[in-house]
Amino acid sequence: MFSQQYLQMLQKKDVIFEIFGYASKRRREIGEENVFDFSLGNPSVPAPEAVREALTGIPEQTDPLTLHSYSPAGGIPQVREAIAQDLNARYGASYTAGNIFMTCGAAAALAHAIRAVASPGETVLTFAPCFSEYEAYVAGCGCLLEVVPADTETFEINFPMLEEMLSPGVAAVLFNSPNNPSGVVCSTRTIRALADLLKKKSALFGHPIWLISDEPYRDIVFEGTDSPYIANEYENTITCYSFSKSLSLPGERIGYAAVNPKADQAGLVMELFTQISRTTGHNGAPALLQRVAAKTCSLTADLSVYETNCRLLCSALSSFGYEFVRPGGTFYMFPKSPLPDAKAFCRLAMEHDLMLVPGDGFGVPGHFRIAYCVPTEKVERALPVFERLIRT
Amino acid sequence: MFSQQYLQMLQKKDVIFEIFGYASKRRREIGEENVFDFSLGNPSVPAPEAVREALTGIPEQTDPLTLHSYSPAGGIPQVREAIAQDLNARYGASYTAGNIFMTCGAAAALAHAIRAVASPGETVLTFAPCFSEYEAYVAGCGCLLEVVPADTETFEINFPMLEEMLSPGVAAVLFNSPNNPSGVVCSTRTIRALADLLKKKSALFGHPIWLISDEPYRDIVFEGTDSPYIANEYENTITCYSFSKSLSLPGERIGYAAVNPKADQAGLVMELFTQISRTTGHNGAPALLQRVAAKTCSLTADLSVYETNCRLLCSALSSFGYEFVRPGGTFYMFPKSPLPDAKAFCRLAMEHDLMLVPGDGFGVPGHFRIAYCVPTEKVERALPVFERLIRT
Repeated sequence: MFSQQYLQMLQKKDVIFEIFGYASKRRREIGEENVFDFSLGNPSVPAPEAVREALTGIPEQTDPLTLHSYSPAGGIPQVREAIAQDLNARYGASYTAGNIFMTCGAAAALAHAIRAVASPGETVLTFAPCFSEYEAYVAGCGCLLEVVPADTETFEINFPMLEEMLSPGVAAVLFNSPNNPSGVVCSTRTIRALADLLKKKSALFGHPIWLISDEPYRDIVFEGTDSPYIANEYENTITCYSFSKSLSLPGERIGYAAVNPKADQAGLVMELFTQISRTTGHNGAPALLQRVAAKTCSLTADLSVYETNCRLLCSALSSFGYEFVRPGGTFYMFPKSPLPDAKAFCRLAMEHDLMLVPGDGFGVPGHFRIAYCVPTEKVERALPVFERLIRT
Repeated sequence: MFSQQYLQMLQKKDVIFEIFGYASKRRREIGEENVFDFSLGNPSVPAPEAVREALTGIPEQTDPLTLHSYSPAGGIPQVREAIAQDLNARYGASYTAGNIFMTCGAAAALAHAIRAVASPGETVLTFAPCFSEYEAYVAGCGCLLEVVPADTETFEINFPMLEEMLSPGVAAVLFNSPNNPSGVVCSTRTIRALADLLKKKSALFGHPIWLISDEPYRDIVFEGTDSPYIANEYENTITCYSFSKSLSLPGERIGYAAVNPKADQAGLVMELFTQISRTTGHNGAPALLQRVAAKTCSLTADLSVYETNCRLLCSALSSFGYEFVRPGGTFYMFPKSPLPDAKAFCRLAMEHDLMLVPGDGFGVPGHFRIAYCVPTEKVERALPVFERLIRT
């Protein structure tokens, strides 16, 4: 009587997990410092000191009954207010506490957003390359994920294909900029073109097409990159955020879904979120971490190492002959594989203790992902391996 | 295109929420001390000092990158091991880390357990009176909840009705002892009779009937009460636990699902849990709270006030003429309503600023729930109100 849905998911081997296992084995064999692990998106810089101060200070300063008591499903009102104000100050938005729903990370925010605006059987569109977990997230809502093929020249949006695939059955577009795995940040011009197309099609189909904007990398944008706040460009936007990357807190699962106050029936969407929580076992984000987020939401960890690593890699890999689109943010890049089969290339890299992830799982075979959230000295020591790999 | 499922849930008014709103209003009007709020199951005793020490000590003593890094879906191995060892020491069980899946509270544990062993369309049985959220939990899995009518004499198990309702389509039995809302703790004899019946029916139907044991109140059991560890009595048991009540941490959403190592394909169930997490947005319990749980899982808050309050209420309410089954644990009791309509009775109580919850939402109309997780002096001051209510 085990559910077929989950049994079938077990059949699909997770490549990242396989690489992770091999990297762990090699760490034990040859030492941490000799394994060039560029496979995981785990931040390499510590959380800001203010996080530690909040974590230790809040329990010292707060009555434990108040501190640990149930929070409303959507979060503690003052926390939601603090986050709304921070978004308004940064982006000139007009959120109130009532537009912010605190969640256990971006994954939970996406689980709420998709369930709220897409009914079972409807389609959610996304763009290659995309985070490999999107398929599981969308399937879990009973919806169908369709992936718009990549524009491999820019890794922005393949508009002709998007226009072709935008059918009346599309309830939402799941969008991720700054992008995992390409590191590309879509420009204001691209976002506006997307918004125009969605508005046109919404009018044509007689129902809104929602933009679910997955933004865990929003605060990792490199100098000179044009990075608009997406909800400012399209009203029917639900912004899904996590503090995992900006505050280096991936294990603490703290984030939120922000419903644009200008969206169609924004208040109803928030009410649906509360109901959705009841059905998925998500009974609110942990109270302590909510309070920490409220105190630190305007800060980031020192994210500069990612830009340093990006420059170093772009310059070296380009000189070795790798082809790639230069990232505008994140801690990823997504070069073309020197071998036609990126899996074979990544296997070859593994033999040199360099861990990379083939692009197949991100919907773009023939490319591979480098997660450069590692110390810069490790990037430097890995460069000769990258060079050797393209020359063999 | 909003999902009908959640829109329909919105139609059903939540009585507890309504009472909560009224109680908040009255608090502002007449002061906290004059509102006798027995409506919510929010612990009234602080978390043990060891929780505060762990919360402040762990961030001081741990490298932030290690502290806040991603944990595996099922939890940090050492945390899972600590919880397994604690269960083994308490109950003579034989859990290993591989049987423990850390979750964001008992709700998430239940969401995993039901999805793992019941396929959409199958039936989950539970027993009246039961926690009102079970319907949402089970519906969220695409399954049907059927409620075995209460044995109102004992509030243990109505075996004739259970036997009649155990059909081949029943995948799991969702069980809650110590029970919310009755406070009743099922005896070893009752649990063994349940286990025998489930074994017999499993053999007859040719598939296991799983016992999903919801145990957030396991550690609140009063003197002299026989309270067996349920998984020791039935092999195909998944135990869902939360530290909300035992450690007074309801807002921190930390708990686990423990799969009995003797269960059918126990390892596969754990693997399914990982897949289920991917589809519900539950990407693991927060790392810091996992570490706190590992350090404090053998402790409890000072829970003695609940037993004091229970004795006081039982003695007084009995002398006033209320009829009820004496609780063996929890911080609830579930008397018969002096008026045939418990909603009318609770509305009357509200007019005296005494907040109670009618039994209708728990599947037993004509009864009402008292949540006596309040200071003892408040119980004492509320007794005259209870007396007045039954005499009018």
